[in-house]
Amino acid sequence: MLKVHLNHETAPEHWADLQNRLDPGIRLSTGSRPPADFDILVTGEPTREDLTGNPRLRAVVVPWVGAPLATLDLMREFPHVALHNLPYNIGPTAEMAMALLLTAAKRVVASDQRFRRGYWSGEHPGVPGSVMLDGGLALILGYGRIGERIGLACRGLGMRVAGVRRNPILADEEYAIADLPALLPQASAFIVCLPHTHETEGLIGQRELDLLPPNAVLVNVARGAVVDETALYRALQARRIYAAGVDVWYRYPSAAERKLGLPHPPSVFPFHELDNVVMSPHRAGWSEEKEPARIAELSKMLNAANRGDSMPYRIDLDRGY
Amino acid sequence: MLKVHLNHETAPEHWADLQNRLDPGIRLSTGSRPPADFDILVTGEPTREDLTGNPRLRAVVVPWVGAPLATLDLMREFPHVALHNLPYNIGPTAEMAMALLLTAAKRVVASDQRFRRGYWSGEHPGVPGSVMLDGGLALILGYGRIGERIGLACRGLGMRVAGVRRNPILADEEYAIADLPALLPQASAFIVCLPHTHETEGLIGQRELDLLPPNAVLVNVARGAVVDETALYRALQARRIYAAGVDVWYRYPSAAERKLGLPHPPSVFPFHELDNVVMSPHRAGWSEEKEPARIAELSKMLNAANRGDSMPYRIDLDRGY
Repeated sequence: MLKVHLNHETAPEHWADLQNRLDPGIRLSTGSRPPADFDILVTGEPTREDLTGNPRLRAVVVPWVGAPLATLDLMREFPHVALHNLPYNIGPTAEMAMALLLTAAKRVVASDQRFRRGYWSGEHPGVPGSVMLDGGLALILGYGRIGERIGLACRGLGMRVAGVRRNPILADEEYAIADLPALLPQASAFIVCLPHTHETEGLIGQRELDLLPPNAVLVNVARGAVVDETALYRALQARRIYAAGVDVWYRYPSAAERKLGLPHPPSVFPFHELDNVVMSPHRAGWSEEKEPARIAELSKMLNAANRGDSMPYRIDLDRGY
Repeated sequence: MLKVHLNHETAPEHWADLQNRLDPGIRLSTGSRPPADFDILVTGEPTREDLTGNPRLRAVVVPWVGAPLATLDLMREFPHVALHNLPYNIGPTAEMAMALLLTAAKRVVASDQRFRRGYWSGEHPGVPGSVMLDGGLALILGYGRIGERIGLACRGLGMRVAGVRRNPILADEEYAIADLPALLPQASAFIVCLPHTHETEGLIGQRELDLLPPNAVLVNVARGAVVDETALYRALQARRIYAAGVDVWYRYPSAAERKLGLPHPPSVFPFHELDNVVMSPHRAGWSEEKEPARIAELSKMLNAANRGDSMPYRIDLDRGY
C-alpha cells in the first residue's frame, strides 16, 4: 500500500480524475495536516513539520515546475527524502513570458486604458510608444526546457537568441553566466527564467540592469528574488530600461491572506504607479486547460512509485532543477 | 523638375532627413493645401479636390501599407493617376498583431489592472484566465506579406497555420475564402489582416463569428469594416468567443478632432466596458523606430520617379494591394 498525501487544494473534478488514474494499490489523502504516516507528500512548499517524525516518507513532489529556495534548503535536512517537481507547465509558462514581453514592448496596457476613455493618441510624447523586437537579440537567462521554448517563439518574431545556462553546451546560441556583461548591452529582450537558488539570488542587480540598452524589455517568470527589487524598481522608475513584464514578486500573501482576498502589494515599491511595467500575479505557469495534463503526469509519477520504478523529474538540490 | 507635395505632418527631423535623401531635381512642398501644380501627392487619404484640375498629377503615394476603401474608389475617377503605397511597416504590424493576440489570450490587461490594486486572484471564477495557443490553429485571413510574417510568429509559439488568400497557391497551408466555414471551427486564433475592399467589407459577420469555437481569440489589424461591428460586439459581450485584440475601428476622429484631443469613442457600442477585448487605437503599423526606414523607402520611390523609372508598390484598385 503506497500512501500519498496532497496538502494543496484540488478542484473536485480534478481530484476525481486523479483517483481514477491511480493504481488500486495507492491510498490518497488530502488536507492541510498530513496523516501520521505516508510515503509521498505532494505539496507546493513543505514545512519542517510535514517532513518530521515520519520514517516512511521517501519523496516530496512539488506539483508544478521548480521548487522554492526554502524547500531546496529544507530538504537538505532530510537526505533520505527525494524532491521531485512536475514540469508539465512549460508551454503555459513560455506563452505567458511571450505575452508579457509583447505587452510590455508595445505598451498595450497603457494604450488600452487610455483608449477606453476615448483618447487616440499616445500618453507620453517623447517616450516611444513601442519598441521593435524583430531583428533584436533575445537574451534568455536560464536556457532549460522553458528557456528553449521561449527561444523558439522569439525566433518566430524574427529575433536572434542567446541562451545563458549553467553548463552551456557547444551550441552557437548557448553562453555561460560569465558572458552576461558582454551580452546584456546587446539585448532587446532580457528574459529571466532560471531557478531560484543561492547562486541565482540577486544575480540581476543594478550593475546588470545598467548594462541593458535603454530600449530593452525585461521579463521575469523565474522568481522575484533573482532580480534585485530595488534595482528593478529604480531602473523602471527612471526609465533606464524601456519596460518590464513581471510575473514573480517580492512579497506574497500567506495562504490565510489569500483566502481573505484582501489587497496585498507585491513589493515595498509602488510598481503599480509605473506605466512601463506589466504586472502579473504569479500566474505564468498556470493554465486551467493544462490541469488535466498535470493530473495525468502526477498519476504517472505516483503509479511508477507504486510499481517500484524510479519517479521522474527529481530535483538536484544544488542546481535547483 | 519633379514636384512632390506631402500633405500630412512630418516631424522636422524626418522632414530634413527626407530632403537630404532626395535627388536635387525634386522639389518638395508640404501643407494641407497642395500648390497649383505638382507631379506626385503623398497623402494618407486624398480628397477629390486634391486630385482635380491638376493635369501634371501622375501618382498618389499613401505613405504606409494599404489604402482606404474610399481612396480605392476615388482613384477610379482618375485613371491617369497611379496609386502606390509604402509597405515598410510589415514588421511593426505583425508584431502588434502578435502582441494583441497574446495580451487577449492571456487576459493580461484585466489581470494587470486588478493586480495593481493588490488582488492576486482572477476576477472571474468560471471564466478561464487564459487560453493556450500552443498546438492550436492560427487562421490568418489575408496571407500576404503581413499575414505570412504573423504566420511565422504563430509557428514559433507552436501553432499550426492556415493562411486564407484571394488566390491560394499550391502550398499546404494556403486556403481560399470559400474554405472559411470549414476552417473557422478549428481556429484558436483568427487573425484578420486583409485589405478593405468592396469584397472584404463585412466579410466576417455573425455567421462567421458563430462558427468560431468558444476559446477562440480574434485579432483585427486590417480595417474595422472587414469585421461587422454589431456582430463583434455581441460575440464578445455574450462571451461566445474568448477574447479579441482590436486595432482598427468603426468611428474615427477627424483630423480636426484629433488636434483638439477630445475623447472620441471608436464604436457606437461600449467595447470599453468589456474585459475580454484589448483596445488599440489604430497603431499597429506605427513604430517610431521605423520612421527612418519609412523616409528611406519614400525617398527611394521618389528618386526612381525623378529618374524616369517606374515606382514600386503600385496598388491594384480591385485587389486593394
